Amino acid sequence: MTEILVSEVGPRDGLQSIDRVMSLEAKKAWIAAEAAAGVKEIEVGSFVPPSLLPQMADTAELVAFARTIPGLNVVALVPNAKGAARAVEAGVHAMSIPFSMSETHSLRNVRKDHPAMLAEIAEVAQIANAGGVHFAVGLSTAFGCTIEGAVSEEQVVRLAAAAAEAGAQEFSLSDTTGYADPAQVKRLIGKVRGAVGDKLTTLHLHNTRGLGLANALAGLEEGITTLDASLGGLGGCPYAPGASGNLVTEDLVLMLNSMGLKTGIDLAKLLEVRQILAEALPGEPLYGFTPDAGPMLDYNERIAPKESEA
Amino acid sequence: MTEILVSEVGPRDGLQSIDRVMSLEAKKAWIAAEAAAGVKEIEVGSFVPPSLLPQMADTAELVAFARTIPGLNVVALVPNAKGAARAVEAGVHAMSIPFSMSETHSLRNVRKDHPAMLAEIAEVAQIANAGGVHFAVGLSTAFGCTIEGAVSEEQVVRLAAAAAEAGAQEFSLSDTTGYADPAQVKRLIGKVRGAVGDKLTTLHLHNTRGLGLANALAGLEEGITTLDASLGGLGGCPYAPGASGNLVTEDLVLMLNSMGLKTGIDLAKLLEVRQILAEALPGEPLYGFTPDAGPMLDYNERIAPKESEA
Repeated sequence: MTEILVSEVGPRDGLQSIDRVMSLEAKKAWIAAEAAAGVKEIEVGSFVPPSLLPQMADTAELVAFARTIPGLNVVALVPNAKGAARAVEAGVHAMSIPFSMSETHSLRNVRKDHPAMLAEIAEVAQIANAGGVHFAVGLSTAFGCTIEGAVSEEQVVRLAAAAAEAGAQEFSLSDTTGYADPAQVKRLIGKVRGAVGDKLTTLHLHNTRGLGLANALAGLEEGITTLDASLGGLGGCPYAPGASGNLVTEDLVLMLNSMGLKTGIDLAKLLEVRQILAEALPGEPLYGFTPDAGPMLDYNERIAPKESEA
Repeated sequence: MTEILVSEVGPRDGLQSIDRVMSLEAKKAWIAAEAAAGVKEIEVGSFVPPSLLPQMADTAELVAFARTIPGLNVVALVPNAKGAARAVEAGVHAMSIPFSMSETHSLRNVRKDHPAMLAEIAEVAQIANAGGVHFAVGLSTAFGCTIEGAVSEEQVVRLAAAAAEAGAQEFSLSDTTGYADPAQVKRLIGKVRGAVGDKLTTLHLHNTRGLGLANALAGLEEGITTLDASLGGLGGCPYAPGASGNLVTEDLVLMLNSMGLKTGIDLAKLLEVRQILAEALPGEPLYGFTPDAGPMLDYNERIAPKESEA
């Protein structure tokens, strides 16, 4: 059975996309419950200035808490070298820096052009290496940008190669805008792999246009082994214009488990974790087909059912 | 460019799943508008007794109307030989009979076991041949049954072969219950094709668990060339237990067009057709991510964008 790593990014990508601040206690309960359901990696927050994202102000405390959970890989996002130093100090297992393939988006978002970002990545890589922390680069807006429109695949390949040169140990392709389609996913994985090889492991997909799981499938078929997702699709409203809409962890796990891929996640337990979100963020919309659709057939029953005819 | 036939089944599968009866005029407007958007095949209704499904009572009139639209392939569902005779008389181009792979479901639904259904299929085939009408068999509950649970793939293969022997010219695999997963879709297509070859052309998918487009992608990769879908996912509520939830035509077309597959359908025009449903069935939920997510990047721009760097 092929093992697939489902990386929960809700505590970071979900929570940073909503205005409300979730309490530290609720975040801890969420992380603990997902780990107990079998989730092996969680991005618990990001080391950005609390003045910019008050939702992430307790990331260091969350890292310390998450580190106490046996077997859990604790990840945080870092925007720059300063954040990387804080992440190392907090004790993360791994850190990830977003690198926007659209230069306009990069300038708008972090006020850095591509050369400045590559310099930042080199600095982060040094800090990560010195701290013995795994360091990944998220190639964001890789499938298109709401400002620039389409992004050249050759440009993504070139920038990925440059980031690898600068010290990135691992890469994800990130559909920040929900523009990805399955053919593009396959094509771009192939091209980027040509530049950085097996360092490309991960897809970070949004479900803005409902293509999230189809894009995930396309990625799996090209050898992607890690998929980011957010419990309840938290932070994105698939039915509102401009919404981000992370891939829903529950629906992703349903698909992977049904296909006989090994996630190690107990879907029934995972579904129970929604209750923590519902109580901590009353009225916040939670998405996903799985919670209401009734149970899926078990994989083992699927592949060897009894015959109904004599 | 590979041509993919998107077969609109909303006027049949969508409308038969809701209690309300849509007026003949609204149905005509719907069919005409979808054809004008580029949809080349529409299942306009079913020839069941009006006492059972009053929503379908005007199917013969709809067939006559749809036949006046140039280039449109006009399909109707028939439950049995009696319905087939009515379909031929009405002038359909093609008819389709559902054949439930779960014998329990078949008995419950049409009070016929598998041998009785095969006899019916043989009779329908004769009527279709005599009338010069194309005749397809829909292998329903092929991916599992809410009553029986998993359905043996070997049983599906055996029954498909028997139906081909009885005169079926074409086959669809139908995920009546929303149990299909992408691995199963690929596996079952391969097995059924071993029995009936290229007569297997079509997937009829429901989006009950959100896997509809991923399953469609799996089918395309196995050479499926026709995909059934329902405008606005009419008739199925993906967020309610037990709901059917047809694949949403708009989302399917978005995916296919984005991938550079040729549907001949103008997505912007297709989205406008939702207004006809909204006006004819006020308050009836319409689904799909595409209508609210904002426009997708154009395929030609996607594959050859300008570079943002000098």
